[in-house]
Amino acid sequence: MVNKLTFDEQALSQRLMNYRREFHRYPESAWCEFFTTGRIAGLLENLGFELYFSDSIIARDAIMGRDETSIADAQQRALSWGADANILSKMNGVTGIGAELDTGREGPVYAFRFDIDAVEVMESQDDSHRPRFLGFASLLPGIAHACGHDAHASIGLGLAEVLAENKEKLSGKIKLLFQPAEEGCRAGKAIAESGWLDDVDYFFAAHIGMNVPSGTLVCDPQHFLCSSKFDLHFKGKPAHAGIEPNAGCNALAAACTAVTQMLAIPRHRDGMTRVNVGQLTAGDGRNVIPDKAILKGETRGENRDLNNYMYQHVERIAQASSMMHGVNVEVHAQGEAIGLHNDIELVELLASVGYGCGFNNVIREKDFGASEDAGYLVDRVQAKGGKAIYCMVGSDLTAGHHNGDFDIDESRMLPGVKLFTAVIERLQNRFRGS
Amino acid sequence: MVNKLTFDEQALSQRLMNYRREFHRYPESAWCEFFTTGRIAGLLENLGFELYFSDSIIARDAIMGRDETSIADAQQRALSWGADANILSKMNGVTGIGAELDTGREGPVYAFRFDIDAVEVMESQDDSHRPRFLGFASLLPGIAHACGHDAHASIGLGLAEVLAENKEKLSGKIKLLFQPAEEGCRAGKAIAESGWLDDVDYFFAAHIGMNVPSGTLVCDPQHFLCSSKFDLHFKGKPAHAGIEPNAGCNALAAACTAVTQMLAIPRHRDGMTRVNVGQLTAGDGRNVIPDKAILKGETRGENRDLNNYMYQHVERIAQASSMMHGVNVEVHAQGEAIGLHNDIELVELLASVGYGCGFNNVIREKDFGASEDAGYLVDRVQAKGGKAIYCMVGSDLTAGHHNGDFDIDESRMLPGVKLFTAVIERLQNRFRGS
Amino acid sequence: MVNKLTFDEQALSQRLMNYRREFHRYPESAWCEFFTTGRIAGLLENLGFELYFSDSIIARDAIMGRDETSIADAQQRALSWGADANILSKMNGVTGIGAELDTGREGPVYAFRFDIDAVEVMESQDDSHRPRFLGFASLLPGIAHACGHDAHASIGLGLAEVLAENKEKLSGKIKLLFQPAEEGCRAGKAIAESGWLDDVDYFFAAHIGMNVPSGTLVCDPQHFLCSSKFDLHFKGKPAHAGIEPNAGCNALAAACTAVTQMLAIPRHRDGMTRVNVGQLTAGDGRNVIPDKAILKGETRGENRDLNNYMYQHVERIAQASSMMHGVNVEVHAQGEAIGLHNDIELVELLASVGYGCGFNNVIREKDFGASEDAGYLVDRVQAKGGKAIYCMVGSDLTAGHHNGDFDIDESRMLPGVKLFTAVIERLQNRFRGS
Amino acid sequence: MVNKLTFDEQALSQRLMNYRREFHRYPESAWCEFFTTGRIAGLLENLGFELYFSDSIIARDAIMGRDETSIADAQQRALSWGADANILSKMNGVTGIGAELDTGREGPVYAFRFDIDAVEVMESQDDSHRPRFLGFASLLPGIAHACGHDAHASIGLGLAEVLAENKEKLSGKIKLLFQPAEEGCRAGKAIAESGWLDDVDYFFAAHIGMNVPSGTLVCDPQHFLCSSKFDLHFKGKPAHAGIEPNAGCNALAAACTAVTQMLAIPRHRDGMTRVNVGQLTAGDGRNVIPDKAILKGETRGENRDLNNYMYQHVERIAQASSMMHGVNVEVHAQGEAIGLHNDIELVELLASVGYGCGFNNVIREKDFGASEDAGYLVDRVQAKGGKAIYCMVGSDLTAGHHNGDFDIDESRMLPGVKLFTAVIERLQNRFRGS
Repeated sequence: MVNKLTFDEQALSQRLMNYRREFHRYPESAWCEFFTTGRIAGLLENLGFELYFSDSIIARDAIMGRDETSIADAQQRALSWGADANILSKMNGVTGIGAELDTGREGPVYAFRFDIDAVEVMESQDDSHRPRFLGFASLLPGIAHACGHDAHASIGLGLAEVLAENKEKLSGKIKLLFQPAEEGCRAGKAIAESGWLDDVDYFFAAHIGMNVPSGTLVCDPQHFLCSSKFDLHFKGKPAHAGIEPNAGCNALAAACTAVTQMLAIPRHRDGMTRVNVGQLTAGDGRNVIPDKAILKGETRGENRDLNNYMYQHVERIAQASSMMHGVNVEVHAQGEAIGLHNDIELVELLASVGYGCGFNNVIREKDFGASEDAGYLVDRVQAKGGKAIYCMVGSDLTAGHHNGDFDIDESRMLPGVKLFTAVIERLQNRFRGS
Repeated sequence: MVNKLTFDEQALSQRLMNYRREFHRYPESAWCEFFTTGRIAGLLENLGFELYFSDSIIARDAIMGRDETSIADAQQRALSWGADANILSKMNGVTGIGAELDTGREGPVYAFRFDIDAVEVMESQDDSHRPRFLGFASLLPGIAHACGHDAHASIGLGLAEVLAENKEKLSGKIKLLFQPAEEGCRAGKAIAESGWLDDVDYFFAAHIGMNVPSGTLVCDPQHFLCSSKFDLHFKGKPAHAGIEPNAGCNALAAACTAVTQMLAIPRHRDGMTRVNVGQLTAGDGRNVIPDKAILKGETRGENRDLNNYMYQHVERIAQASSMMHGVNVEVHAQGEAIGLHNDIELVELLASVGYGCGFNNVIREKDFGASEDAGYLVDRVQAKGGKAIYCMVGSDLTAGHHNGDFDIDESRMLPGVKLFTAVIERLQNRFRGS
Repeated sequence: MVNKLTFDEQALSQRLMNYRREFHRYPESAWCEFFTTGRIAGLLENLGFELYFSDSIIARDAIMGRDETSIADAQQRALSWGADANILSKMNGVTGIGAELDTGREGPVYAFRFDIDAVEVMESQDDSHRPRFLGFASLLPGIAHACGHDAHASIGLGLAEVLAENKEKLSGKIKLLFQPAEEGCRAGKAIAESGWLDDVDYFFAAHIGMNVPSGTLVCDPQHFLCSSKFDLHFKGKPAHAGIEPNAGCNALAAACTAVTQMLAIPRHRDGMTRVNVGQLTAGDGRNVIPDKAILKGETRGENRDLNNYMYQHVERIAQASSMMHGVNVEVHAQGEAIGLHNDIELVELLASVGYGCGFNNVIREKDFGASEDAGYLVDRVQAKGGKAIYCMVGSDLTAGHHNGDFDIDESRMLPGVKLFTAVIERLQNRFRGS
Repeated sequence: MVNKLTFDEQALSQRLMNYRREFHRYPESAWCEFFTTGRIAGLLENLGFELYFSDSIIARDAIMGRDETSIADAQQRALSWGADANILSKMNGVTGIGAELDTGREGPVYAFRFDIDAVEVMESQDDSHRPRFLGFASLLPGIAHACGHDAHASIGLGLAEVLAENKEKLSGKIKLLFQPAEEGCRAGKAIAESGWLDDVDYFFAAHIGMNVPSGTLVCDPQHFLCSSKFDLHFKGKPAHAGIEPNAGCNALAAACTAVTQMLAIPRHRDGMTRVNVGQLTAGDGRNVIPDKAILKGETRGENRDLNNYMYQHVERIAQASSMMHGVNVEVHAQGEAIGLHNDIELVELLASVGYGCGFNNVIREKDFGASEDAGYLVDRVQAKGGKAIYCMVGSDLTAGHHNGDFDIDESRMLPGVKLFTAVIERLQNRFRGS
């Protein structure tokens, strides 16, 4: 039997908190994680990991939902926050890192995935909001780590430290994926198609929170929603709203019609469906018939058929709304999630180690109820013959995900690290025992 | 009889064009006209006018529709464009200038008003668009002189030059008002209430274009619309759109409902009404139920009752839409226009001098069909015993007002200057003759 | 000079009231006026008029807005109310009568038109409503003479009596047209195209009330609206709303979308426009996705271009709404009004005789502000070389037209008869004098 | 052990078909089942059952969704179809029958429930529709047995025949409930509250079809939806749509707004919800702003909380829509379903006898996915200490329930009778054996 992986839990827990608060201060939205990527890369390099950037881990033509006009600003901001220009140049404009620890000994290939992007949410300005009270609130108005990916990145760094410290006790290869652009399911497909995970035997990923209380581990979440993200661009004709309102083609009115109608897509017999329009920007001057409107939305479904049902309605509504107001519309796909199914072998594994890792309640199934970009990664690993799992690590929350008041229970990061450490131990034993 | 006012028409026409193209390049939206104000002030100072700024010409508590968050940026930009920091400090944060030429001789007080703000319209990027072709297109994306106020300011400067040159032939006092924030009818009330025009005997204002062809003068435009400008701020509750859509209160949905319903306010028996929502900005992240929406709109009516009818519907729709979606709404007044009625004496005057000033077609009445902030100024002058008039100076246009392709016939500025010069001559004669 | 036409005014006024109250009790909607037609025909026959029915006065293929399923019931009801079966058979299913009095003496052909249909309005059940209080309220729930055509028909009968009594003093031919289906402008075109009015030299028509007070005559009403009447038939697919809501195609939702959007057709620069959906009937069972919806609407415009602008929007909205919900739609034209312009010669004539006929206020112009099926008749007469006029006979009202509380001032029918009598006298003099 | 109940299966199957086709020809909607009630009562009386009508089986003040204006017509029609006037008088205006067979021997009280009302659906006019082809199509346009209650009533009569024939082999009391007004869940509460079922030990009910194929028995259907049925009455103000559209308060526009918004009530995290507006009737004349609108709708939820969530939104939308258009609204509750949970003992019982009754596939669970008025009855029986069950008897269908093309596989009625016969046999054995 392999030697147990050892580390100072208390010291690590403190460093996890420090990492998390730093990431929380410097939130970056999808595809803009230049500071975050650089910071993580610097730390991993020091720990002896080999790093992969850009085309090595991302198939560029499968990228979705990237706003090219925001990239230069994001890079500039990262530099102003102290990012390492040398690492930035390695990224070649694309965020995210693959890190590999090759033990030099024969053994399986393990992969762990941590998503690192923040969301476009205004963080609470309330004094009782802990990040504000303690001084690590977001420095970027309108962007915040209101989903917990700051904790995910920190758990990844913590795991990297433990692995580096225990390298001599390990065999095989361990890959850590720090994924950009999970929000909106924009990067998973591109990472999968890069092939970087194709040799992986065991793939692990987790989400903190998700309405699971502190101390609970959910080994096999159910109902990962399929999802399509889309932008609608309406283009009409401006006119002076006082002098000749009849001469305009009102793109804002078309967009509002589309919003109202999308929310009214009929529920489906076969299960859960969702639709949301998260953002609408339309028009210029107050007294001008608006000639353009941009709407950002998403559909979801309990399975692919249900998501397709929703998306087809969206496409029809887009066409009908534009016809209604005599404007043009373009539908731009911006992201897609395809569901996720765990391998039972790994579900059993998590269930068997959970209580030893700081969880006091280990359960099998619970609804996930959202979309997760990891679906593409899990699907790819499984297609190439590996096993994969995605679990939920409980944490009490101060508010729901994507709410400006969101905050996590920071003490729940350590059990995450211990869980991933434990599965490596167990799988190494199994491998050597065979 | 007074000596005729004389000047080199050809040279002035060239300078009018130069002024206009400069203003066109540096467009500034309402309440942000720091560069424009500074530039005009510098020129008038050199011509010997006494200048009035800030509280002297604007009653601050009657200001409407001013976005305080944009002021500092606008000042910074003006400085970067070369504005005179000394003049900027005199403005004390408020744009616009009153300029007075006191002849020292007894006589009437004349006032001429020129509005100087640009509109929030994206100027055409088309190579055939003359300002772009000739290199004087807007330097500020999203802001353009698409209403002709660049020409108005230039006519004002041209008139100032002629007056300064002929000062010895004049008697009485002449006031030139370079008004900010005409778009949206945001400054008129504040200027009127400052009292700066209270001693005026004769007040003149004009608009170029307005579907009146080059060569035509309309002496007594009809149907100035009354108008109310408003912002609606909807505030709801965010929620993760996939996990618990039921937990949100959708501010975007409320705004879209309001837009659709506002456009459907019943037409009125008694005459023309209008309503427009020119801009809507709502939501943040794609997968978040939007918790805020800001809508910029306006109503108009052929008279005050009709505008009130529309505005009361808007207020009710705002309340009902917010109730519908369980969100809060605030209605912020942003501007108001009250109609405008010319004095017949001045209508006759314009009609009698028009043909001598470069117009080949002088007509009495034509629908104005829009709102005009000058209504407050005309109303104030008339209330204080003066006479006032607002006319339309024809100009062929390349596109309607507030359209990105808008451009004027620059040769039509000179007749504007000549018209105002002529009315001074005629009124001075009448005064001396009496 | 001709002898004056004479009659007992007081006795006639009493009979006018009796006629009107009888028609009021037995209201019949458009194309269903079998009892009314029969009653009038019987009276005119006794007075010696020659009667024309059916194809003689109506071109069947130009009929609009006739619900064939209601005809048999209407005939049955007319018989149950005591209609003469013999006259009914002459109608051959089509209501309305042309009546001619041929004096046998040379002279002009005069025509007078009276519309006879009621509207689909529920009459007030209030005890203070005079028709109810005095016992002549509508016997047919949902149908009422709430527009005053009961008075029009009575004036026509009164005129017929006076003419019959004074036949020996008259020359030329006099035609009385008792028109069906004026509401919705459904019969005018068919009557015009029948050619029955093609030999008319002078054509007269009038409306009682119309916001003109008792005692006032308006000789030349302005702004007769052009109008299109239409039905939209939406056809979707039913489904059990609980079991599989996704399987339906919701015709009711499509119709509601269409209604909301129609009310929001942009106002037009060039003048007054209107749109209304007066009726919507959709769906069957509460728990079934509605698979059909029928919507009755109309557009109006100050002129033909404006009405066309509105109607084209309606057609586009119908298509877009059906596309939006995956249903089919058919647009059925149901009526059309084309405007109306009086001949100045007859305007002068009315103005000159009005004060002698019981009017104390004779004015030229006032907005009509509604559509009038007589437009087709006036247009036809004028096209064939005749002169035509349509005027407004004042009457104080208890409520607006088409309101359940509507009632007229019955004493204002007599001036109507006297006015038409007077114009015949005057024109006969002119004819003989020439 | 008891003697087996015996009967001629082939002859009974033929009679079941005859009964079903007769009921199919004479469909009656909820609370209007006078002919159907009378026909069933006559047959049961002949078989020796004691009959209960009116207040004996229905608590009048708990009746929902009854249109009092349609009752007299329905009674008249029933008489015209040959109903027995004597039985009609016993009903005292309320449809439905309770029938009891008292064996005079000690034993349990059994109850079987059969619903008898038709739905408001237009039956297919297609020649290939079997009821039409074979001549038993609905005689009442717009009403049809498109849900299978004609088969339910027939199964009830078939069971009555078998019981009467085998009376001497039975002990205890057997109650047959022929329930009116199941559609819309309008009678269940009133029957439960009458107390007629309070002494029942075993309660059985079944639905034919429901997407279960011929030959399959579902013993324990899941997910009976909770539901609320409601009518919204909007009351506005009429006005002439051409003359003064501003003077109206548009009830139709309010109703359309409500429809669109109801369809857009957000989906709920916790499970299935539904909303439908099945019918909308609004307005009168085409050129009148509609002053009234009546909308018939329903909400559903997978449990009471979810249904309440939907219904509270409906109430808010009703208020907001009426506020939006300045009209009044009244919300009238019309029916309610409360879910349904089977007793496991009876589930086991059905599972054990199913294969012997003509079913070739006996399964435990399947989604029901609709509401069922039997919930109130099951709830009452259970509350009083009895056991209750509701099952699904498979039948291939030609179209979904409530579709005009709906038809059943008539051969599947016999297994229904055999199933109920078998459970009595089995329970009697158990009783005697104890």
